[in-house]
Amino acid sequence: MRTSFVQQAQLYRRALLDDVLPFWERHSVDREQGGYFTCLARDGAVYDTDKFLWLQARQVWMFSMLCNRLEKREAWLQMARHGAEFLRRHGRDAEGNWYFSLTRDGRPLVQPYNIFSDCFAAMAFSQYALAAEDEEARQVAEATYRNILRRRENPKGRYNKAVPGTRPMIALALPMILANLTLELEWLLPPDVFNQTVDACLRDVFSLFLDEERMMLREQVDPDGGKRDCFEGRLINPGHGIEAMWFMMDIAERRNDRALMEKAVEVALRTLEFGWDRRQGGVFYFLDAQGHPPQQLEWDQKLWWVHVETLIALLKGYRLTGRKACWSWYRRVHAYTWGHFPDPKYGEWYGYLSRGGKILLPLKGGKWKGCFHVPRGLYLCMREFEQLAAQAGAGRVAPAGGEKKTAAGAGETSRPGGEGTP
Amino acid sequence: MRTSFVQQAQLYRRALLDDVLPFWERHSVDREQGGYFTCLARDGAVYDTDKFLWLQARQVWMFSMLCNRLEKREAWLQMARHGAEFLRRHGRDAEGNWYFSLTRDGRPLVQPYNIFSDCFAAMAFSQYALAAEDEEARQVAEATYRNILRRRENPKGRYNKAVPGTRPMIALALPMILANLTLELEWLLPPDVFNQTVDACLRDVFSLFLDEERMMLREQVDPDGGKRDCFEGRLINPGHGIEAMWFMMDIAERRNDRALMEKAVEVALRTLEFGWDRRQGGVFYFLDAQGHPPQQLEWDQKLWWVHVETLIALLKGYRLTGRKACWSWYRRVHAYTWGHFPDPKYGEWYGYLSRGGKILLPLKGGKWKGCFHVPRGLYLCMREFEQLAAQAGAGRVAPAGGEKKTAAGAGETSRPGGEGTP
Repeated sequence: MRTSFVQQAQLYRRALLDDVLPFWERHSVDREQGGYFTCLARDGAVYDTDKFLWLQARQVWMFSMLCNRLEKREAWLQMARHGAEFLRRHGRDAEGNWYFSLTRDGRPLVQPYNIFSDCFAAMAFSQYALAAEDEEARQVAEATYRNILRRRENPKGRYNKAVPGTRPMIALALPMILANLTLELEWLLPPDVFNQTVDACLRDVFSLFLDEERMMLREQVDPDGGKRDCFEGRLINPGHGIEAMWFMMDIAERRNDRALMEKAVEVALRTLEFGWDRRQGGVFYFLDAQGHPPQQLEWDQKLWWVHVETLIALLKGYRLTGRKACWSWYRRVHAYTWGHFPDPKYGEWYGYLSRGGKILLPLKGGKWKGCFHVPRGLYLCMREFEQLAAQAGAGRVAPAGGEKKTAAGAGETSRPGGEGTP
Repeated sequence: MRTSFVQQAQLYRRALLDDVLPFWERHSVDREQGGYFTCLARDGAVYDTDKFLWLQARQVWMFSMLCNRLEKREAWLQMARHGAEFLRRHGRDAEGNWYFSLTRDGRPLVQPYNIFSDCFAAMAFSQYALAAEDEEARQVAEATYRNILRRRENPKGRYNKAVPGTRPMIALALPMILANLTLELEWLLPPDVFNQTVDACLRDVFSLFLDEERMMLREQVDPDGGKRDCFEGRLINPGHGIEAMWFMMDIAERRNDRALMEKAVEVALRTLEFGWDRRQGGVFYFLDAQGHPPQQLEWDQKLWWVHVETLIALLKGYRLTGRKACWSWYRRVHAYTWGHFPDPKYGEWYGYLSRGGKILLPLKGGKWKGCFHVPRGLYLCMREFEQLAAQAGAGRVAPAGGEKKTAAGAGETSRPGGEGTP
């Protein structure tokens, strides 16, 4: 068992270091005008030069994070600096809000209507401040974070199209991302801000967005958590729900809260069972909680990030709780993901597949896919397997042969190592 | 030939009168709270009760138009009145702008950010004013039309997310819809307003949005007509372009402008050649002019309205110019459309198919599909075939047998009747 965990860790490490990161290093750097190209064709050719804040910031975060947590490579630091300088120069309006997109040379295209630009910018500058030991970057991260907290009651501001009062609803995305962001920024936040914000995110996710009966998250609910029978209220985004659960597992691990771990794993598994396409494999993009037609025409497509986030959640859940269902689902999602998304010819992963698993768009990057979910997922899965291997080596996991026997009569929960290897 | 035109007219008439209109009469009326349900499942069951202005208005237009142009049925007038009263009571804000959506009981949900709500409301009240001989409805139509003209330079108003000045672009949708709307409202407009607006729409469509080399319309261009190499600038929506061309053919017919007819037909055919899926049939929803991946994940889907609008354009083009290519394309699109969209079991048509022609969503109505494109298309195709039959009966079309011989040596353009029947 330990051997196969080690092999799995190596699979993810090689894909990260030998395939995915080099793809972005080779193709994404705009050496003339700064920042990154993210609209990359199958072979890495640039097909559009607009610069989307989410993706610029996420790439800065990615290379900074690797410097901080994997290896202090000068090339990675340079890569991060290249994007951070561009963002610092061009990314914000006069009030310090982050634009949504810029032209190639950094002129603002789309207004700061989207608070997630700010969230990813704060993540980016926080990691970059650590990697580059850059005090100004730390200040950018902190100021941006405070601005997010200030804006969070009305994140869309004047771009909000809802008529006030008729049907106020709140969205899962913000508390979910804020939970992850707050863990990321812990080192630069006062402890009371850190604890209060994490507490608030936990409360929002589990007492407002969670449908307790079905143990799945809704994307939008009433401000008091009411589940409303309208398109927005019925919407389930399985990838989102599952990603949110590994953010919650991170909090649970940090607080050593076993009940929270179990709950987060349960929600992830229930969401995956609901979201899995039993006929053609893969996880759907959008579903209606009551089985009605969703508004989103792309509902049945299979997206890279949904599958990557699911792998992370299942491995974390397996390591933290030992639930066999995490491992058996991991094997199934692993087989689908590795069988469909990587492009062995030109490197990196496809992003968008049809329901049947065929390539819907041949791009490696675009307006929403950049240097983020794939490498982050590869890094995190690698780390999970390294820890699983260490646990197994330390005798905390029974060897595969012995495990199989005990697992047979052990009910659904067991320690890591059951049910073979992926 | 004449016989088969008559048979085709009957096919469309029966589908309209015996299938599609009864479906909406049976399932869409909200007898308790007014207005129409448009979110209808395959069998007509209501799965959501929100009321979207586009669809409320279009259904009022549809039944009013049939009263005015097909038959003065009391039931149709009642149906139109049912929606018109709901809209008159609940549809507008204090400045007379039309909301985007309302709750079932008429409370405003989404602000008037979308000028097409106003366009369809103006169309609706204009036809309803004629059908019901209702002076107040005429005033609503006229005031709404003037408000559209006033807002057209900045149709999104404060909801516009583009940073002013960086990359101003204008959208095809407004001049295209305005052209159709202005023809609809001619009876209530001063002649100078009518002529100036139609002239402006023609100028915008053909001198700004048309790519002269490829004879296709872009969805968005620079204000001076420049074709820009960005996602929005490269976007082609074949259904939109083809629909715009039958609006232009209507103008050409009204003005008896043969050059305009020929040009509109040429653009429709070139767009259809570009938009047709040579592998799996049907017309794509979105394409990139340069073949890059479009942003729209639904790009390869086959939508009902695209195909219905294409049938209208091809038949109008055939009747007006006699181009054989219109007829041969009509046969191909007819076969695809009638082979894929109608639901013989529960009536009406499916709206959304996957690239391969399978049902993507089983709905008959939703947020964007209502009682509009299918019945309007059935009505207009019926009328085209009636006119073609009349032309053939009056000896203006050669009989099919004789036509085939002459057509062989006659080049691409011929009078209606060539190439067999659909």
